[in-house]
Amino acid sequence: MKPGDIQNIIGADLEAVKDLVRSRLSSSVRLLQDVNESLLESGGKMARPSLCLLMARACGDVAEDTRRFAAGVELLHNSTLLHDDVADAADFRRGVPTVRSLYGPVPAVLVGDFWLARSLDLILESGHRNWALKAFSKTLVDLSEGEMLQQQKAFQCDTTEEDYLRIIYCKTASLFELSCRAAAVSVDASPQVTDAAGAYGRALGIAFQIKDDILDYTGGDIGKPSGLDLAERKITLPLLGALRSSGEEKAVREMLRSLPEHPENRAAISGFVSRHGGIDYARKALHSYIGAALAALSFLPESEERTALEEFAHLNEIREK
Amino acid sequence: MKPGDIQNIIGADLEAVKDLVRSRLSSSVRLLQDVNESLLESGGKMARPSLCLLMARACGDVAEDTRRFAAGVELLHNSTLLHDDVADAADFRRGVPTVRSLYGPVPAVLVGDFWLARSLDLILESGHRNWALKAFSKTLVDLSEGEMLQQQKAFQCDTTEEDYLRIIYCKTASLFELSCRAAAVSVDASPQVTDAAGAYGRALGIAFQIKDDILDYTGGDIGKPSGLDLAERKITLPLLGALRSSGEEKAVREMLRSLPEHPENRAAISGFVSRHGGIDYARKALHSYIGAALAALSFLPESEERTALEEFAHLNEIREK
Repeated sequence: MKPGDIQNIIGADLEAVKDLVRSRLSSSVRLLQDVNESLLESGGKMARPSLCLLMARACGDVAEDTRRFAAGVELLHNSTLLHDDVADAADFRRGVPTVRSLYGPVPAVLVGDFWLARSLDLILESGHRNWALKAFSKTLVDLSEGEMLQQQKAFQCDTTEEDYLRIIYCKTASLFELSCRAAAVSVDASPQVTDAAGAYGRALGIAFQIKDDILDYTGGDIGKPSGLDLAERKITLPLLGALRSSGEEKAVREMLRSLPEHPENRAAISGFVSRHGGIDYARKALHSYIGAALAALSFLPESEERTALEEFAHLNEIREK
Repeated sequence: MKPGDIQNIIGADLEAVKDLVRSRLSSSVRLLQDVNESLLESGGKMARPSLCLLMARACGDVAEDTRRFAAGVELLHNSTLLHDDVADAADFRRGVPTVRSLYGPVPAVLVGDFWLARSLDLILESGHRNWALKAFSKTLVDLSEGEMLQQQKAFQCDTTEEDYLRIIYCKTASLFELSCRAAAVSVDASPQVTDAAGAYGRALGIAFQIKDDILDYTGGDIGKPSGLDLAERKITLPLLGALRSSGEEKAVREMLRSLPEHPENRAAISGFVSRHGGIDYARKALHSYIGAALAALSFLPESEERTALEEFAHLNEIREK
C-alpha cells in the first residue's frame, strides 16, 4: 500500500480534522496567533489523527466524535512536543526551527499549555465526554511520568528492559493506544472491538518507538542524525540487547556514566552494540510487536481500512526515518 | 481579623485538602516523587484553596466537591508556577530554590504537566464534573493567553491600561474567580450567589495583582526585591498612571524600549513614576477593586465567613509582600 492509498481513504476527513485543529487554535493574542500559524504551517505527518480516522472506518465509520478525537490527539501530541523541545533545548524538529528556538522558552511552554487546554475543550464537546476525559488525562499522566522516568534512568544509567518498555509505552504507545481506542469509542464499537483497537495501537506505538531507537544506531545519512540517544545516556533496546549477551554489563554501564567527561567513548559503545548483536535483538522485538499489532486486527472485520492498518504496522519494518 | 481566625474557621478542611493534594501526587517514578515532595514541603500559602473553603462556607457549607475543587485549583496553580519558573528561568520562589534550578527545566515542565493532569483527574470525580471541566479549561486558556499577551506587550512596550487589565485578569484573577465560583457551585448555591462569588473572586484577584505591582515599585527591604517588572519591561499600573498625566508618554516608552542597552535608566523611570503620581493612581484603582469585591459580598447572607472574606479583601490594603 502506497501513502497515496491511505490518502484516498481518509483524505477528506483528514482535511476536516486539520480545519478543526486550526479553528481551535485561534486566539486574539497576536503572538499566540503567530506562533500557532507557524506551527500549523510546518505541520507534522498527522500520524495519530490518520490512525484514528482509519481505525474508526475499520470499526464502523467516521463520526463527528471521531474527528473531534482525531483533532484532540493531534493537539495533545503537539502540546507535549512543545514542552519536550523546551526540556531538550531543541533547536530543530522535523527539519524546521522549534518554537523554543524562534520565540524562546516562554512561548514554547505557554503555547503547549494553550494547545492542551484547547484539546480538552474540544473533547468536552464530544458525546463520549466522560470516557474521553478520563482517557486523555490518563495519557497526559503517562506522558509526563514516562519522560520523568527516562530522565531519572538516563541520570543513573541503570535502565532495565522493563524500565525501557514502560518508558516507551508511556512516551509513545499510550498516545497511539488512545488514538485507536478513541476511534472505536467514537463509533460505539463493542467492548471486544474497542479493546482490540487499543491493543493494536499499543503494539504499534511500541514497534514505532523501537524502530526509532534502532534508527538512532543504524541511521545517519537519511533522516535525523544517529547517536543522539547515546549522547543523552538513554539506554534503548539495541544496547540492552547487547548488554544481555556480552557479560560486560558493568563495564559498559560505567563507560556510559562517564560519557559527559569522555564523549569519545560513544563510538566504543556503538561498536559494542553491533558486536554483540544488539541491533538484531531489537529487530526481533520489533517484529514481535508488529505481530501483536496484526493479531489484534484479526478481531476486526475485513475491510480496505483493516488492510491499510496492517500496512501501517509493516511500515515500521522498512521506514528509514 | 487575624490570620489565626481564618485558621480556626477552615483549619480542619484545609488539612483535608492538603492530604488530598498529597495523595493525588503519588507516583511510582522516584524522580517525580522526589520533586513532588520537595514542592509540598516548601509549600505555598494555600491562598486559593483557603478562599474556596471560606467561600463555600459563606454560601452554604463545605461539601466533598468543595475539597476536590480546592485541591484542584491548588494543583492547577502550582502547575502554572512550575511552567512560569521555566519561562522566567527563575532560581527562587517564596525564598526557596525552584524545581527548575534544583532539577533543571525538564522536570519543571513535566512535573507541571503531571500536576495539571492530576488536577483534571480530581475534578473529573466531582458531582459537578461538566461545569468544572469547562471552568478549569477556560482558566487554563486564560493563563496561557495572559502570559503570552504579557510577553508580546513587554517586547513591544506598548501596553495600554486595557491590555494591562486583561493581562492581570487572565494571569491572576481568572484563577481567583474560579476558586470562588467553584466553591459556590460545589454547594449548589443559586445562580445569583454563584455570580456574586465569581465577581468577588475576580475583583479580589485584580486587587491582589495591582497590590503586587505597586509593591514592585514601593517594596524593597521587605519581601521580594523591587523593580523586577521594570527590568522585564512589564508596564504595570503605576507606570501607566504616571504616563497618563505626564505628557511624556512617547519619550518614556522609548526609554523603556532601550532598557536592555541602558539598564541604568530603570532608576529614571522609577523616579518618573513617583513624580507623576503613578503610585497614587494605582492605589485608587486598588481601592476601587476592593470596593467591588466587598459590594459583591453583599449578595451573600451575613456570617462569620463573609466577614472573613471582607477582611481577606482589605488585606490588600496593608500587606507588604
